[in-house]
Amino acid sequence: MPIQFDPPSGTRDFLAADVEVRERAFAAIRGSFARYGFEPLQTPAFERLEVLLGKYGEEGDKLIFKILRRGEHEASGEADLALRYDLTVPLARVAAAYGSQLPTPYKRYAIGPVWRADRPGRGRYREFIQCDLDTLGSTSAMADAEVICAVHDTLAELGVPGFRVLLNSRRVLAGLLEAFGVPADLGPDVLIALDKLDKLAPAEVTAELTGRGLDQGKAAELVAAMTAPDAAERIRAALKPSEEGSAGLDEIDAMLSLVAGQLPADRVEFTPRLVRGLSYYTGPIWEVAAQGVPGSIAGGGRYDHLIEQAGGPDVPATGGSLGIERILLLLPGSDSGRPSRLDVAVTVMAPEYAPRSFALASAARTAGLRSSVYLGSSGKLGRQLKWASDQGARWALISGAAEQEAGTVTVRDMNSGEQAAVLVPELAGHMRRVAAGGTAEGGVG
Amino acid sequence: MPIQFDPPSGTRDFLAADVEVRERAFAAIRGSFARYGFEPLQTPAFERLEVLLGKYGEEGDKLIFKILRRGEHEASGEADLALRYDLTVPLARVAAAYGSQLPTPYKRYAIGPVWRADRPGRGRYREFIQCDLDTLGSTSAMADAEVICAVHDTLAELGVPGFRVLLNSRRVLAGLLEAFGVPADLGPDVLIALDKLDKLAPAEVTAELTGRGLDQGKAAELVAAMTAPDAAERIRAALKPSEEGSAGLDEIDAMLSLVAGQLPADRVEFTPRLVRGLSYYTGPIWEVAAQGVPGSIAGGGRYDHLIEQAGGPDVPATGGSLGIERILLLLPGSDSGRPSRLDVAVTVMAPEYAPRSFALASAARTAGLRSSVYLGSSGKLGRQLKWASDQGARWALISGAAEQEAGTVTVRDMNSGEQAAVLVPELAGHMRRVAAGGTAEGGVG
Repeated sequence: MPIQFDPPSGTRDFLAADVEVRERAFAAIRGSFARYGFEPLQTPAFERLEVLLGKYGEEGDKLIFKILRRGEHEASGEADLALRYDLTVPLARVAAAYGSQLPTPYKRYAIGPVWRADRPGRGRYREFIQCDLDTLGSTSAMADAEVICAVHDTLAELGVPGFRVLLNSRRVLAGLLEAFGVPADLGPDVLIALDKLDKLAPAEVTAELTGRGLDQGKAAELVAAMTAPDAAERIRAALKPSEEGSAGLDEIDAMLSLVAGQLPADRVEFTPRLVRGLSYYTGPIWEVAAQGVPGSIAGGGRYDHLIEQAGGPDVPATGGSLGIERILLLLPGSDSGRPSRLDVAVTVMAPEYAPRSFALASAARTAGLRSSVYLGSSGKLGRQLKWASDQGARWALISGAAEQEAGTVTVRDMNSGEQAAVLVPELAGHMRRVAAGGTAEGGVG
Repeated sequence: MPIQFDPPSGTRDFLAADVEVRERAFAAIRGSFARYGFEPLQTPAFERLEVLLGKYGEEGDKLIFKILRRGEHEASGEADLALRYDLTVPLARVAAAYGSQLPTPYKRYAIGPVWRADRPGRGRYREFIQCDLDTLGSTSAMADAEVICAVHDTLAELGVPGFRVLLNSRRVLAGLLEAFGVPADLGPDVLIALDKLDKLAPAEVTAELTGRGLDQGKAAELVAAMTAPDAAERIRAALKPSEEGSAGLDEIDAMLSLVAGQLPADRVEFTPRLVRGLSYYTGPIWEVAAQGVPGSIAGGGRYDHLIEQAGGPDVPATGGSLGIERILLLLPGSDSGRPSRLDVAVTVMAPEYAPRSFALASAARTAGLRSSVYLGSSGKLGRQLKWASDQGARWALISGAAEQEAGTVTVRDMNSGEQAAVLVPELAGHMRRVAAGGTAEGGVG
């Protein structure tokens, strides 16, 4: 397309076929979340700048789209508003604003665009949809497990092939550092290095750990334990003496037993090497991995202090996020070849028949069918049938002088080319029957 | 709410009940537009600044939310992007960008937020939903009539009470100026004054016309003709000698005969005084008036050069817009009193029963019901039933020691208080039956 008509860098136009695929997915997600008792929340596209600034770290702050002040203040070059960067800070604001008006616990989902001034790239956009569900106000492991089950059911309903949930806990990680004698000040660095075990070879991670100051022997021991085929068992054994580690394991086991009655066996797996980068998690953490997809397609965890840090009340919280833009790429495309914009295409054989054609389209609509008249200028049947075919219509309705005379309409099956004459007052019923796959009773030809 | 937690001035948070009402309306609108063969289009929230500037007049330009450049350019205080102000300029850009990839004619609808830095007021927002449908590439009056019918059916489906469509044509108005001998240079001013006949008394409009320089006699004659009980007839007679006026009347009559077979009689009314402020209309124009609502709830018309002026190709176009924020205020509220977040609330009588409760909630979900376990910390049944009631649940499931022993679950009807013991493996089927209003077969108590 000519460059000046491109959408802005990092954003996309969605024509009909894309909108339909996306909206169908969002509808399935909404339905699935609702069945778990999560309720929808919608907040504005922009927030006051001070609500967002300082919430995403220095790097994050740079990626916020800021809105210039208006009117006489525009010349100041200052911003007072900013496009939302995620759906969590707006949730914190809402939790603070509506307090007791919200149910306890407050289980909400939000699906909507966020904006980040990241460098655009393959699969990385400046405007993209986030899809979050969170439970505020419950410390129960059931709340964590419920989020995982809701995400699981949603992915299954969307038809995402072969995925697994990797489960860990920040308390397990804390216990691990303790059990392997990692000095407290090296803890965060060690976790950052361990987080790379899904991408780097064990020796590379060991090297990074020693590079970050961990004793060579400890580094090797830690990586060996984490990457062994029986890693989960070895880590369990190592954690037993640690109070924090044991509490983390209890958390994991409680969640595994909660999901056991509900999800297919082995769908959720204790994965000690799972760290998740974000520093705000305080309890269980999880990610969803899909076959053949690098990285994760969903993730989340418990973050008991984040809502307060984000400007909200001090409430325990757990939640998750679907990487919906990524997931959409995994779903089977709807490449049905010919687009289908219409079920019924109504020809207009001469200007004086227009009201009649209009009424025929209306009758087909009462049968629940997408239906429209020909709006072009050609009076030729062949041209109009070509249009009907381009629309992907299943039927064309033809009504010329002969039909006018007989009080009928010709219903043409666009696949077979078969035609039937139907009395006009019976058209809606006829179309309802043929659309349901029934026989064409009511035809008079 | 504390002021610092307000959404930004002129914007709104939508909690669950509002989201549900709004989304239900949008779904009905999408379904209705699709049945007319309109297809969806979604464009980004922001456009390059130069795409928007100069398209809305000087006053409009001032109301555009501009986005500050980023990174090293932020300090310049300059904007390079802006939030979209309407859905028409993005449509023009898309028509230019995708050209032959789009069907001919291109019938599209768009439902999404737009942003205007207007002074917020009662019912006037800075972020609000626009809902447009347009046909690009057809000069046929059928295209105009189709838009009106689609809007009509949509309003009817939404349940908007008592509304009528006022129809006129810019060509009728041009003929009118000619027929009443209005000097060409006074034309636009005269139309602006006549547009106020729905709000001001005839004498006030006459005064305004003379104030704008129209001859006193002509002004009185014009206003008398427009406000007479038989205005449509008088104007028809007056227009006969004018070529432009006659062409306009033919346009009106063609449209009236097209909609006659489809809409209730007298739903569409030729209304010579209808002007619609926007200067870009070139043919038929229309508005929808609803009982007891000042102003219009929908409007549109033909604008054969606007797409080109807005940066797109030179294509004929006609379309309309639903004033959806206004319409939502007209619809019967969903004030059902108690909110209903859940169909089935599952109690958790002791921590060791949690996995069992979890599985019961899952079974109810397979019956299509919204279902969740109690996530609070109380082990008391009364407290948990209070929660079930607050959720608006129709049923509570209770599973304690006795039920565990018997392999059953107690299903409590939250309205009647009646309880039934149901074998656990039969729960999903039982819930499906009671939800369908059937009898509680399968109960063992």
